[in-house]
Amino acid sequence: MFSSAKPDQAVDRRAFLGAAAAALLPSRAARAATAADLKPILAEIEKRHDESVRRIEDWVKQPTIAAENKGINEGCDLMMRLLRDAGCNQVTKCPTDLHPGVFATLDAGAPKTLAVYIMYDVKQVDPTEWSSPPFSPTLVERSGLGRVLVGRGAVNSKGPQGAFLAAVHAIRGAGQRLPVNLVFVCESEEEIGSPHIPQIVDRPEVMAALRQTVGVLTPSSAQSLDGTVTLSLGAKGVVELELVSTGEKWGRGPRLDVHSSNKARLDSPAWHLVEALATLVSPDGNTPVIDHYLEKVRPVSAAEKAMIDEAAKRENEELVKKQLGIEHWVHDVSFRESLEMLCSRPTVNIEGLVAGYTGPGGKTILPHRAVAKMDLRLVPDMTAADA
Amino acid sequence: MFSSAKPDQAVDRRAFLGAAAAALLPSRAARAATAADLKPILAEIEKRHDESVRRIEDWVKQPTIAAENKGINEGCDLMMRLLRDAGCNQVTKCPTDLHPGVFATLDAGAPKTLAVYIMYDVKQVDPTEWSSPPFSPTLVERSGLGRVLVGRGAVNSKGPQGAFLAAVHAIRGAGQRLPVNLVFVCESEEEIGSPHIPQIVDRPEVMAALRQTVGVLTPSSAQSLDGTVTLSLGAKGVVELELVSTGEKWGRGPRLDVHSSNKARLDSPAWHLVEALATLVSPDGNTPVIDHYLEKVRPVSAAEKAMIDEAAKRENEELVKKQLGIEHWVHDVSFRESLEMLCSRPTVNIEGLVAGYTGPGGKTILPHRAVAKMDLRLVPDMTAADA
Repeated sequence: MFSSAKPDQAVDRRAFLGAAAAALLPSRAARAATAADLKPILAEIEKRHDESVRRIEDWVKQPTIAAENKGINEGCDLMMRLLRDAGCNQVTKCPTDLHPGVFATLDAGAPKTLAVYIMYDVKQVDPTEWSSPPFSPTLVERSGLGRVLVGRGAVNSKGPQGAFLAAVHAIRGAGQRLPVNLVFVCESEEEIGSPHIPQIVDRPEVMAALRQTVGVLTPSSAQSLDGTVTLSLGAKGVVELELVSTGEKWGRGPRLDVHSSNKARLDSPAWHLVEALATLVSPDGNTPVIDHYLEKVRPVSAAEKAMIDEAAKRENEELVKKQLGIEHWVHDVSFRESLEMLCSRPTVNIEGLVAGYTGPGGKTILPHRAVAKMDLRLVPDMTAADA
Repeated sequence: MFSSAKPDQAVDRRAFLGAAAAALLPSRAARAATAADLKPILAEIEKRHDESVRRIEDWVKQPTIAAENKGINEGCDLMMRLLRDAGCNQVTKCPTDLHPGVFATLDAGAPKTLAVYIMYDVKQVDPTEWSSPPFSPTLVERSGLGRVLVGRGAVNSKGPQGAFLAAVHAIRGAGQRLPVNLVFVCESEEEIGSPHIPQIVDRPEVMAALRQTVGVLTPSSAQSLDGTVTLSLGAKGVVELELVSTGEKWGRGPRLDVHSSNKARLDSPAWHLVEALATLVSPDGNTPVIDHYLEKVRPVSAAEKAMIDEAAKRENEELVKKQLGIEHWVHDVSFRESLEMLCSRPTVNIEGLVAGYTGPGGKTILPHRAVAKMDLRLVPDMTAADA
């Protein structure tokens, strides 16, 4: 996932697989978690609540805006301290050509190792959109929600990271060992497209550690409006690309925008793009038809099907449809089927189209260049090289 | 032509059919123009040269910018004076919901009547792009060109209009009658897309006059860099439109931009647009395949073929290719064939594409709306209703 491109964040946050902290539990075969095991941990969580909230407040208070080079170095220092406090055996700063990342490991002597991806940067702020200063986290009562923390990064992603660390502290505080070893890979450039994450993960010691892991977790759990806590157990990798059709490179069509009357005698890069795009998907735009693209898609397992069944029952379909502004799922499938498609199908999506004149009204030109901005989401066993 | 949309200007200016003033001559069957007929007229042109240049200077000096409502009323008054001075029998101001047009007739007692379309507005000016003030016309020596007039509208279209009026003055000055009657339809909104030209041409007296005409002339002749003077004998009508695909109207796909991961379970307006566009043309993007679109296209006549042969010899193919920034004509046809296609084939062109994220890089969205800005150029016997 790391090597192909940046991990897919947003779907996770709204994702559908419940059972908070499930990923922290060992597999059922290895050891069954019982209520007795969890009781002292739950007590620790209760006891350390205020400490956990303060940790998140401190984390939100620290601006970390990659796009503005604001607070990134201080944020990196705080990230490292948070990981040391959580019991990491080693914490290493990883400079890149722009902003630094962090690599850390927590060896719990467990048979399995899980990777944890953390982004410690946040989006820029527009103060006029905020009811309280974005970097002064504030606890407020919100009707229907209870007491919530308002601040930049409280949801994406410092809050969920703080909750994850709270669980680690609670397990240790209860005198127990984590059931999995952890490998942390942290970056501070997610919001600008993770341009330098290869410089972090390609370090030999990081790559070696990641090779030992059974998967990657992104702390991104959140509560939906009905109170359900969700934790994603997977994320698709995404390949972003621009498909550019231009007379300059093509050898046909004009190398500059010309008067549109010339369409009668000239090839058009815009039409060339349209026809090229049409070869990528089925005529309804919904099924990728790129050669070999679907070959590696593995069937949905029985365990996954069971979780999807559960998620379809737990989530409110009408609410999800309302949030998405839709009336129908693709092919008019059921909500359950839509969830299965969401988690199991690779996609070919148009993010944007740009060609020629894009202002109000029209302009009689034959554009020399047309661009489709696209993303391709890959499922397990697919790689960027395949796509 | 008037009723379908605004006439196509730019192709005319660079067009390929020579023989300046040919349209002013009666048909060969009716009366053969001889050198003897033209001699006194050519002498008048010579004699009135300075007067003609001053007329153009006065015309260029008057700003007429529809988009900025600048000088339009004064321009309308001047337009009317120019037509009266040229000998029109009646000159009528035609108010519209925005800027006025002018309708005028010149009855020469000739058997045939020709319509003349005039736009008396010009584009806005960016003073930094000008070597001299755009509304202070200046005569300058230009290497390879000789003495030229620099000013806004000198080329498009007040210069060519002044040249046309100069010919009318010269014929009258030589004591001769025009060989055709003229019907002038003038508008001041061409540069903003001719939104109100129907309010001019739909006036009963204008429509009645236009019904008597054998064709429409747009004064737009210009000299190319090698000195050739060209005069277009035809223009395609153009239908401009936006093809909009949106979840709001479609009933499928989202009504707002959503995260692109949802492509796995949602229809995409952008893909829908791409597939719709692909139904309009052949897979190479070059031949319209819209139902019935090509049915009314009439064969190129022997007379037209002869003129195209002549134009292909007269024009410099390499220069034209350089100006267009191309290496090949469509289907690798010859230059002569490209000219025949330009004047005889209807087109379906993409002027612009706009969907979703159009800035630098990408953005992981599934856009709720995608737009293709298009123009369709129609040939004789086709109407906007057909297209």
